[in-house]
Amino acid sequence: MFIAMNRFRIALGREAEFEDIWRGRDSQLEAVPGFSEFRLLRGPQDEEATLYASHTTWESRADFEAWTRSEAFRKAHSGAGGSQGIYLEHPKFEGFEGVL
Amino acid sequence: MFIAMNRFRIALGREAEFEDIWRGRDSQLEAVPGFSEFRLLRGPQDEEATLYASHTTWESRADFEAWTRSEAFRKAHSGAGGSQGIYLEHPKFEGFEGVL
Repeated sequence: MFIAMNRFRIALGREAEFEDIWRGRDSQLEAVPGFSEFRLLRGPQDEEATLYASHTTWESRADFEAWTRSEAFRKAHSGAGGSQGIYLEHPKFEGFEGVL
Repeated sequence: MFIAMNRFRIALGREAEFEDIWRGRDSQLEAVPGFSEFRLLRGPQDEEATLYASHTTWESRADFEAWTRSEAFRKAHSGAGGSQGIYLEHPKFEGFEGVL
């Protein structure tokens, strides 16, 4: 099991807008080999941002990496970069392997 | 849905020892109301540490908070603090609410 996580720092007051971007997304992940589950999670707030995390669970790291090289991945990310001022910094990627 | 995450920075070369601590743990979480799932995950390495994350999934934040006030919680954490030199810093807790 492999989880691809991204962490996002979202400007205070822009949370609903950020969540709507994800709600409207057509990722077509369900059709990708090795895909298991997607979650968007809202974490703690500090004085300037709300932390969010996206978790995409795969059967293996190799399945995830194959997806990142696919046309489906390119399409799913082609809309990114709009929405001025929502993102306080670039998302931080971390890949995790299941141990237990 | 609520996920209680802890992030651990583990000294290089001590990873197997850290994983064994979790393997040997008898958390009795399965018996706790609202508990859904536990995962231990191994993340990226830098020059001094390997990042691990524990994810405990609950039906709600209230279920998690009730557990932290319970005797079962106290017992599950009473063994913590040993194993000199494994932990490069205190674990960092983050609570996340499911959005999607």
